[in-house]
Amino acid sequence: MKKQINIGLLGLGNIGTGTFKALRLNRAHIEKQLGAGLGITRILEKDTTRDRGIDIDPALFTQDPDAIWNDPDIDIVIELLGGVEPATTFMVSAMKAGKHVVTANKAALAENFELLTDTAAKNKVKLRYEASVGGGIPLIGAITESLNANVFSELLGILNGTTNYILSKMSDEGLAYDDVLKDAQAKGFAEADPTADVEGHDVANKLSILMSLVFGKRVRPEDIPTTGITAITKDDIADADSQGCVIKLLASAYRTPDGEINCFVQPTWLNKTHPLAGVRNEFNALFLKGSAVDDLMFYGKGAGPFPTASAVLGDVIAISRTI
Amino acid sequence: MKKQINIGLLGLGNIGTGTFKALRLNRAHIEKQLGAGLGITRILEKDTTRDRGIDIDPALFTQDPDAIWNDPDIDIVIELLGGVEPATTFMVSAMKAGKHVVTANKAALAENFELLTDTAAKNKVKLRYEASVGGGIPLIGAITESLNANVFSELLGILNGTTNYILSKMSDEGLAYDDVLKDAQAKGFAEADPTADVEGHDVANKLSILMSLVFGKRVRPEDIPTTGITAITKDDIADADSQGCVIKLLASAYRTPDGEINCFVQPTWLNKTHPLAGVRNEFNALFLKGSAVDDLMFYGKGAGPFPTASAVLGDVIAISRTI
Repeated sequence: MKKQINIGLLGLGNIGTGTFKALRLNRAHIEKQLGAGLGITRILEKDTTRDRGIDIDPALFTQDPDAIWNDPDIDIVIELLGGVEPATTFMVSAMKAGKHVVTANKAALAENFELLTDTAAKNKVKLRYEASVGGGIPLIGAITESLNANVFSELLGILNGTTNYILSKMSDEGLAYDDVLKDAQAKGFAEADPTADVEGHDVANKLSILMSLVFGKRVRPEDIPTTGITAITKDDIADADSQGCVIKLLASAYRTPDGEINCFVQPTWLNKTHPLAGVRNEFNALFLKGSAVDDLMFYGKGAGPFPTASAVLGDVIAISRTI
Repeated sequence: MKKQINIGLLGLGNIGTGTFKALRLNRAHIEKQLGAGLGITRILEKDTTRDRGIDIDPALFTQDPDAIWNDPDIDIVIELLGGVEPATTFMVSAMKAGKHVVTANKAALAENFELLTDTAAKNKVKLRYEASVGGGIPLIGAITESLNANVFSELLGILNGTTNYILSKMSDEGLAYDDVLKDAQAKGFAEADPTADVEGHDVANKLSILMSLVFGKRVRPEDIPTTGITAITKDDIADADSQGCVIKLLASAYRTPDGEINCFVQPTWLNKTHPLAGVRNEFNALFLKGSAVDDLMFYGKGAGPFPTASAVLGDVIAISRTI
């Protein structure tokens, strides 16, 4: 193994800053486990002056992505720009230059899954994306490694913290959708433009990635029937409650008796005894049924700078062990 | 990678038979993922005539463990004998003979953790034991790989299905401990001699293994303060319920402000809103708090032939990828 692993970081927004901080905070622990040094040596970011609450050597910043691909000392590129482009083009360039890539970018993966995985395979580099679904919850590693002996028949996921927070508050406090959305925006649990979350598009991106991993079936996010939560009323929630149920925005997929795999995103009544029914507020969870393992659930924080950093750095460490 | 991976299986009891069946059932799926053949070519087992509901070539059976260590075609030994001995001696012999080892044996691991991990390291072979804690739940892979960037501060586990089944039934149906135990024994959820489960020794073994992995601290199971569930009464459960709590047999560990790590096994009141409170009947779960990922929970079947086989075969596949 190399004695020093160098990282190029694309993007120093909230998630990038969280990853930078988490690496600095846990660096001694990580380097001890790895038996090698690990450091961020280049950062692609335009905004070099914003106060992020951390000291960053200004010499790390670059506005030229080629400076990262062409740096022979960089082993791994972490992509935290978000959005389909230029992130996809950057990841492809990095892999063609022989860099391993770690990303949290569900939109780019859902849109360009074959391109990205094929580029990694052709260039014999690793592409890892634990943070792209379920934030810090270690579910992609589990599905693609520990659970490999299983054929899966069912998947149910609460994969968006904003909508789960809104539905939890509507349910707990008997409030209307619009009032809770405003409160969530004020508290930073919802974006100023919440469309991608409340219309279910964010969940469809994540379900698209899971379909490839859990069922080996490529489904583009725009081909997943998707209904968001904007039409859910106080009365809907009260009706569900009176029947012993809660309403959750679920990503669902199941294998039919004739081997087809159906999938969709929609608000769903869940019996209160279901393990997913107790997943509240900003938490995410994934429920799976496997041929050997039977029922399984993973639960944790699906977003946020530090939980995302946990998954990103886990991927970085896994790749570093193979360099 | 080798084109054909051969396995020597130690023990064809319930778990061994489940593993044999699960491999046969999912073999095409596993071999496709692996790009190599995978087969059990030797079985160490005295009882060759018992009807296990599967066809097994009698030529696979041996009563001579040396026939497995000395077979140059065997790559991986799966140890499913249970108990500290002769399992420990057999695993050490297998590793000294250059075989990778996969085990579900929490008692042998808890008792001889350094011996087994040191023997693996010295002989440059892999030792994997995902099934030893939490059955089919992929938690050991997550802790040792995906979550590597975290320093953990807290661990709470429901790690024994028998006691969780008994406490769930006492709570749901208002029954006394003795009555539920008899019912659990009749249904096969409790052993004829339930001591290891109800006195908490099984949980202490699992907590001992987790202490090494989660906190890097070796604690022998007999040094973990352990209280079982035999003294829990209907009144205790009613008292907890009246305060909005349930009683669970928990494995607990936490880091104190001065960096010490305390651990114990005991029946514990849990607020009904805690994610572990909804873990019922034979299910297991592990709750962790990490420095980056924050709260995390894994949930699933902690025992049984097929869930255990899921974890064992996941380990076999992970090792096979490196051969």
